Amino acid sequence: MLAYDFMNQAQPQGKTMMLDKGLGLNAVDDLLATAGDYISFAKFGWGTAATMNRDLIAAKTAKYDAAGIMPYPGGTLLEVAAMNGHYDQFLVETKALGFKGVEVSDGSTQMGATTRDELISKAREAGFFVISEVGKKNPELDHELTVDERLDLINSDLNHGAHYVILEAREAGKNIGIYDANGNIIDDELDALAANGTDQLIFEAPLKNQQVALILKYGTQVNLGNIAYDEVTSVETLRRGLRADTVGKV
Amino acid sequence: MLAYDFMNQAQPQGKTMMLDKGLGLNAVDDLLATAGDYISFAKFGWGTAATMNRDLIAAKTAKYDAAGIMPYPGGTLLEVAAMNGHYDQFLVETKALGFKGVEVSDGSTQMGATTRDELISKAREAGFFVISEVGKKNPELDHELTVDERLDLINSDLNHGAHYVILEAREAGKNIGIYDANGNIIDDELDALAANGTDQLIFEAPLKNQQVALILKYGTQVNLGNIAYDEVTSVETLRRGLRADTVGKV
Amino acid sequence: MLAYDFMNQAQPQGKTMMLDKGLGLNAVDDLLATAGDYISFAKFGWGTAATMNRDLIAAKTAKYDAAGIMPYPGGTLLEVAAMNGHYDQFLVETKALGFKGVEVSDGSTQMGATTRDELISKAREAGFFVISEVGKKNPELDHELTVDERLDLINSDLNHGAHYVILEAREAGKNIGIYDANGNIIDDELDALAANGTDQLIFEAPLKNQQVALILKYGTQVNLGNIAYDEVTSVETLRRGLRADTVGKV
Repeated sequence: MLAYDFMNQAQPQGKTMMLDKGLGLNAVDDLLATAGDYISFAKFGWGTAATMNRDLIAAKTAKYDAAGIMPYPGGTLLEVAAMNGHYDQFLVETKALGFKGVEVSDGSTQMGATTRDELISKAREAGFFVISEVGKKNPELDHELTVDERLDLINSDLNHGAHYVILEAREAGKNIGIYDANGNIIDDELDALAANGTDQLIFEAPLKNQQVALILKYGTQVNLGNIAYDEVTSVETLRRGLRADTVGKV
Repeated sequence: MLAYDFMNQAQPQGKTMMLDKGLGLNAVDDLLATAGDYISFAKFGWGTAATMNRDLIAAKTAKYDAAGIMPYPGGTLLEVAAMNGHYDQFLVETKALGFKGVEVSDGSTQMGATTRDELISKAREAGFFVISEVGKKNPELDHELTVDERLDLINSDLNHGAHYVILEAREAGKNIGIYDANGNIIDDELDALAANGTDQLIFEAPLKNQQVALILKYGTQVNLGNIAYDEVTSVETLRRGLRADTVGKV
Repeated sequence: MLAYDFMNQAQPQGKTMMLDKGLGLNAVDDLLATAGDYISFAKFGWGTAATMNRDLIAAKTAKYDAAGIMPYPGGTLLEVAAMNGHYDQFLVETKALGFKGVEVSDGSTQMGATTRDELISKAREAGFFVISEVGKKNPELDHELTVDERLDLINSDLNHGAHYVILEAREAGKNIGIYDANGNIIDDELDALAANGTDQLIFEAPLKNQQVALILKYGTQVNLGNIAYDEVTSVETLRRGLRADTVGKV
């Protein structure tokens, strides 16, 4: 039973994707005990999974899976594998390590539309839950992407079988995608991208002001991503109206 | 015995209030082993305590209590409870969970002076150590509070039985209370608030430059709050003159 | 065996010095399991070692040592000991606690050239691996140091037996040494300091943009320091071209 149970309303249902950039098992245990119920996806950021022993990664994916959280490796790792002609091997290893999902992105590499669609389809066929990502890691390249191009990518990815589409903001959340150089939301851009609804969008929102703004705009159902492991509890309090920024507003 | 015992002088006696925003038990064990002797209060930030299981919260309060640290739930949780007419239930649950103190604030809600005084008195009567907090979480509302109004609140809270009064700075420490938009101290404001002494004041000071400035101004006896769990040791080195910023100055 | 072993090239050989500012044993265990292979030096930042029990420090140094990582206490601690006439006692205690190295600096205190040379020589004679540091913790004092003076110190330290020389940037990495107020590299200064090669230099580089710039400029062999404990894995992915900033560039 939750502490202060009489104060809690029904649990908000928006998805939270947590960024695991290399947690050890003690930290994962702490995370699951404190906030495991509030995490839907655990992304092993970029290529971090490839710097650790297989046994350790398998132990982590097993812990997440047992807690009802879907672990998946970062899109950059998939991109590098695909770029080097190792995509089939990547999918085999990803499954062997206990990951249930993959992220298909082109944030770190150049990739034609056909390739992107094929990567998504192949991952689906291999039995993976597929999340795609729209946006470039390099701010200059990212700024070249128009809103219309982003919308086309979102729609195309969903049509090719992606379950969710992430809007890129990296770990830092500034000068990229829907955020300006100070990390504040560019409203016109956000509104355009969300024109067809937000149910299948995951907004990367590493900064608190971003989390607050998106919850106040779209409600507690909004899906948030790239949440640092030690901010998951804070995000949950924002969704529940238990932190000043959202008290009495959700 | 402390390492390098021959270098250590008597331990500084200023209080340190640490912000626990959702630590798991492994992290709490690490914290107590490394810096438990340097923490007086462990605040379970804002409403975080209400997102976790009762058993977990009780295990944490027991660990803090056994280490001589007073655990207490964040003021926002108390405010939400009071706002919804659950204050009595809140005090019962807070005691049942093993908390020894409460924080009475109006940072997240509007509250008349009478209500504030009653909340403090009731908590005292229920056997709690009471810390109050002065300041608004929303910067615009906070800026409306004059120095005189803050001083009146401090005096009134102490008269109604608060043991300490916290000067609000939130987790981020910028554009609020005695800090400007860059997190630097506004000297006139600080001097006015400290005119009657600082023994019963706890300055929220999450940023290192704030900790340094307050220690250099008031000495190692100054009470500091909202110290991140992984900064407690750093604060202790500042108090002891074992970090560059205070070497030879304390 | 590493996860995704087919994607990994030979391990980069540049040294990584990690800043331990007070980790507990659970966190050290996590660190060693996830990234122990990628750390060469564990610096117990500034005077943090002197705030903890001897048993705890000895347990930590033993863990690092067993993992092939050299633990050493921060330069500030050595400076304070020397300033107070406790240098011999400092070396005895440092050895007794299981540290294998020391850092000789004058970032927090004033020290004549002769003293500096003597401290280095004495530590060498006592069997320590010696790392020196060039730079002042106080930005104003640091700005007074010319490039030529820094180069002279580097050469003198190496001539007196230092194994490596660290270029100071503190924990924050801004407005100090080779970094401007925004934490960006001052190219002219860096080029001048690196004119005689970088094999024996360790660049403190706590910020990601600094790590990226140094890896892209000098290659994956570059020695990086003051890496936060939860950024070691990220730095390793940068060295391996597994994070966007270096994909296809290393």
